[in-house]
Amino acid sequence: MRRYGVIGMGAIGGYYGAKLAYSGQDVHFLSHSDYAYVREHGLKVESCDGSFHLPQIHVCQHAEDMPQCDVVIVGLKTTNNHLLSQLLPPLLHAHTAVVLIQNGIGVEADVEAMFPGLQLIAGLAFICSAKTQPGLVNHQCYGSINLGNYSCHDEALFQGILRDFVAAGIQTGEVPYLEARWRKAVWNMPFNGMTVALETQTDCLLKNPATRALIREQMMEVIGAARACGVAAIDEAFADKMIATTDAMTPYSPSMKLDYDFHRPMEIHYLYTRPIELAAEAGFQMPRLKMLEACLKFKSVRSQP
Amino acid sequence: MRRYGVIGMGAIGGYYGAKLAYSGQDVHFLSHSDYAYVREHGLKVESCDGSFHLPQIHVCQHAEDMPQCDVVIVGLKTTNNHLLSQLLPPLLHAHTAVVLIQNGIGVEADVEAMFPGLQLIAGLAFICSAKTQPGLVNHQCYGSINLGNYSCHDEALFQGILRDFVAAGIQTGEVPYLEARWRKAVWNMPFNGMTVALETQTDCLLKNPATRALIREQMMEVIGAARACGVAAIDEAFADKMIATTDAMTPYSPSMKLDYDFHRPMEIHYLYTRPIELAAEAGFQMPRLKMLEACLKFKSVRSQP
Repeated sequence: MRRYGVIGMGAIGGYYGAKLAYSGQDVHFLSHSDYAYVREHGLKVESCDGSFHLPQIHVCQHAEDMPQCDVVIVGLKTTNNHLLSQLLPPLLHAHTAVVLIQNGIGVEADVEAMFPGLQLIAGLAFICSAKTQPGLVNHQCYGSINLGNYSCHDEALFQGILRDFVAAGIQTGEVPYLEARWRKAVWNMPFNGMTVALETQTDCLLKNPATRALIREQMMEVIGAARACGVAAIDEAFADKMIATTDAMTPYSPSMKLDYDFHRPMEIHYLYTRPIELAAEAGFQMPRLKMLEACLKFKSVRSQP
Repeated sequence: MRRYGVIGMGAIGGYYGAKLAYSGQDVHFLSHSDYAYVREHGLKVESCDGSFHLPQIHVCQHAEDMPQCDVVIVGLKTTNNHLLSQLLPPLLHAHTAVVLIQNGIGVEADVEAMFPGLQLIAGLAFICSAKTQPGLVNHQCYGSINLGNYSCHDEALFQGILRDFVAAGIQTGEVPYLEARWRKAVWNMPFNGMTVALETQTDCLLKNPATRALIREQMMEVIGAARACGVAAIDEAFADKMIATTDAMTPYSPSMKLDYDFHRPMEIHYLYTRPIELAAEAGFQMPRLKMLEACLKFKSVRSQP
């Protein structure tokens, strides 16, 4: 049996950590703000797939009190990734794998630079969930997660993690790391930023013919960037599929829109700045997404409390 | 002496028409909404250059009651240009010249299509003014106007109009038509739309490094479009000059921002759609301004009452 550590007990770490713990895995949570509440009341998941309650969980308030883990799940917002240099070391042993369930492109490379040789796995979650109160995760829909192997040379460990997720009732698959990150960017880059820029939701952007066409142009820009960065498998049809999928969704506020609405920092760096830089280094310009990045930087100054 | 007709007694038509009338020209105003008030109380200009009052002016409520004029000044917003097919004919004789003091690119071509052979002059006003009450124009600063000859073959008439403006105390010059329209677009296209898109003013856009860089990129896009459309005289230094000029201005809301704030239709068609189309026909893409156009179309639906 593998020991799991979970850094960040929010909508992502709280949900997947709770699922693993509920399935019988040995899961240890690190929680700064909810520590006292969760230690007393445990962790609850109100889920479209069936709600459950873990009355007692392993939880620590400080990284130094956490045990060494075989797998560490990072569910932090990337805007807090500078904290990893302090939070991760106590949880690591020589063979630990770290799963970054985070948004954007370039996260793994930066964590690798902090911890050379660390085994890293990208976690690409497709989920609508939110931490609505201390110790309470509300899971509205979806919930699958794909794992992309960035630098986990222990293949048995990687496959074991996949099996643990599946055994926990999570729809999980293995995907090619870089392609998966760019596929997700095809949706994330247009919709996250545009819902903030125009203070709206996904459905309104697609109902207006002008912004619908713009969203598609932005998706094509991301697909062009992916190609420049060596990912050839994403084609125009994928953009159309993403738009059709979003048409079928209920009106939706992506995570960046929620961050903006609640005056939290936005994940501009890994959702925009890094992929735009990587594309530019590969000789591909992203004028529309770069313009969106500028608008988001403008709005982020105003949204901070 | 030339007889002048003025269509639209707002911030533009009201100001330049009043200046011409005050200087002794024979000026006839067409005013729909302010007719009754102005007929009784006349027209007032509160101006940084010296206020004045015209207690009695020639004003009509209906185009059919207007006399034929040698020069017609159109001070309508371009969003009302469809009205010209009804409003203009009664004012025209065989040699009338029409001065379109309007924003954007492509206005003259469309009016020419309505009235083949009509002598058209582009009026490029650099002025901060507003109609704040019926019969009251508030002129805050600037006030110059440049005239570009689009299709006025009567050179004596064109020169006469220039002289009349100068004699009325208006700083006026002759400029090459197409170049002047594009020069103005270098400022108008970035600042009008961006102040609406981000609900801000010129100074904030320039204070934030991200949007300051974006504004310059957008200006370079307009300069590229101008080149593609045959205007080679506008260079990079002009963009820097426009930015420096705007840095020196007090915080400013361009006309489109005022239209947006007061829930009036925005001049998206001639400020964005037409120049973007003209550039595309000439083989030049404007991705940033096209993205801005889409955002404005999105916001225009929401701002209408």
